[in-house]
Amino acid sequence: MDMETIHVVKIGGNIIDDSEKLQSFLKDFSGIKGRKILVHGGGKEATRLGETLGHKAPMIDGRRITDEKTLEIVTMVYAGLINKRIVSGLQSLGCNAIGLTGADGNLIPSSRRKPKPIDYGFVGDIDAAMVNTGLIQTLLENGNVPVLCAICHDGKGTLLNCNADTIAASIAKALAKEYEVKLTYCFEMSGVMRDINDPESLIEEITPPLFEQLKRDGVVASGMIPKLSNAFDSVSCGVREVMICNAANISTGTGTKIHL
Amino acid sequence: MDMETIHVVKIGGNIIDDSEKLQSFLKDFSGIKGRKILVHGGGKEATRLGETLGHKAPMIDGRRITDEKTLEIVTMVYAGLINKRIVSGLQSLGCNAIGLTGADGNLIPSSRRKPKPIDYGFVGDIDAAMVNTGLIQTLLENGNVPVLCAICHDGKGTLLNCNADTIAASIAKALAKEYEVKLTYCFEMSGVMRDINDPESLIEEITPPLFEQLKRDGVVASGMIPKLSNAFDSVSCGVREVMICNAANISTGTGTKIHL
Repeated sequence: MDMETIHVVKIGGNIIDDSEKLQSFLKDFSGIKGRKILVHGGGKEATRLGETLGHKAPMIDGRRITDEKTLEIVTMVYAGLINKRIVSGLQSLGCNAIGLTGADGNLIPSSRRKPKPIDYGFVGDIDAAMVNTGLIQTLLENGNVPVLCAICHDGKGTLLNCNADTIAASIAKALAKEYEVKLTYCFEMSGVMRDINDPESLIEEITPPLFEQLKRDGVVASGMIPKLSNAFDSVSCGVREVMICNAANISTGTGTKIHL
Repeated sequence: MDMETIHVVKIGGNIIDDSEKLQSFLKDFSGIKGRKILVHGGGKEATRLGETLGHKAPMIDGRRITDEKTLEIVTMVYAGLINKRIVSGLQSLGCNAIGLTGADGNLIPSSRRKPKPIDYGFVGDIDAAMVNTGLIQTLLENGNVPVLCAICHDGKGTLLNCNADTIAASIAKALAKEYEVKLTYCFEMSGVMRDINDPESLIEEITPPLFEQLKRDGVVASGMIPKLSNAFDSVSCGVREVMICNAANISTGTGTKIHL
């Protein structure tokens, strides 16, 4: 018997901050057939709220630190405002969304990042082996579409700010044991480009040997390398395919497919 | 076969605003055996955030109006900050809490209150018949403890600010068809008092004839009458028992029991 497919889609701040793009994305997402999960990042709303509140997240060595007040702000904005805006938007499109943090149902236990060399504050790291796939499966079987934000907890009563890309990858890897998982990262480009200034230069498919060659040839921009490395980590952990594409293209399939 | 018992407990702002009381309450709540649901109100944090942001909810005829900005604030504070603080607190106590609004999983569809005679803005009214008991049952059977805040939605993409007491009553009434439901309202007093100045004057039990007599005799303070009327409405709709008590007493059973 074929394994059932689950789509895990991650959207970032550039979609969340643009209500027209978000609405259009939610329509496309709700049209994806079968089981699916949405993971969303933050966007500028948390930064704006912090500024209005006169709170600026401290920086150490150019890295933003999640202090207690920043944690409160991101919890309000990610788990409250943005998550519930997405949930009610999907509900209005007939998509039975259910919004969750990693604390809810102990979905994603995380551990606070070690304070050395930099103490990032209330920042959590997660591990695919820790994901509570049982709850996700229960919800998917119930016809729900989990909508996850990047707030997790340490299981000892403290919420932690995590990375949404890592959450999407961890969920995808954890579910890959029992499902055929397709992981899609939406970002502002159409995919991985041979020439960032040429919209026609989309690379439609990258396999490990091509990735090595692209790196050798210096074709892939340096900022793209960790994204691709993470994608190859996911496929090597059993995720069938990782797609990197523009949020406007999730229903057309245009983008860069990464697979073994 | 006996019906299984579900405890529905509602806590208000006076507990939420006091971290020591809240911690102690969560410990007692997590100790309640069997299936349970927590409904929480708002507290002063939303008002404080509004003030810091320079936003004051408009008032009409002495009633607070939920305008768009206020809706954003209560969504951030109730669904984000408070809900996730409670969830992570319960998780640390071994209670598998899962925080939800009425929009999540279309748990509690609500309808925006009619704009006449007063337009309350983004305020929703709910109906026990509309509660999606299926999702609650799925979660309870999965071992989860739903933690609900009073943000609902209209199913058309708009979130609505609802009344937490009404949500607790609606959930209790909706579940009463299949479970033995005990509904507990926690408030600042020990229960219904014959003499508000005499802590020894707690009325331990109120049945409908006694309620009529207390009203005739003018013993029950006027503010208590709608609370008790709602409690009798719940028991007449099948809820086994409504308890009105201090949050510190949920594990001792001290308070006022309302039943038929």
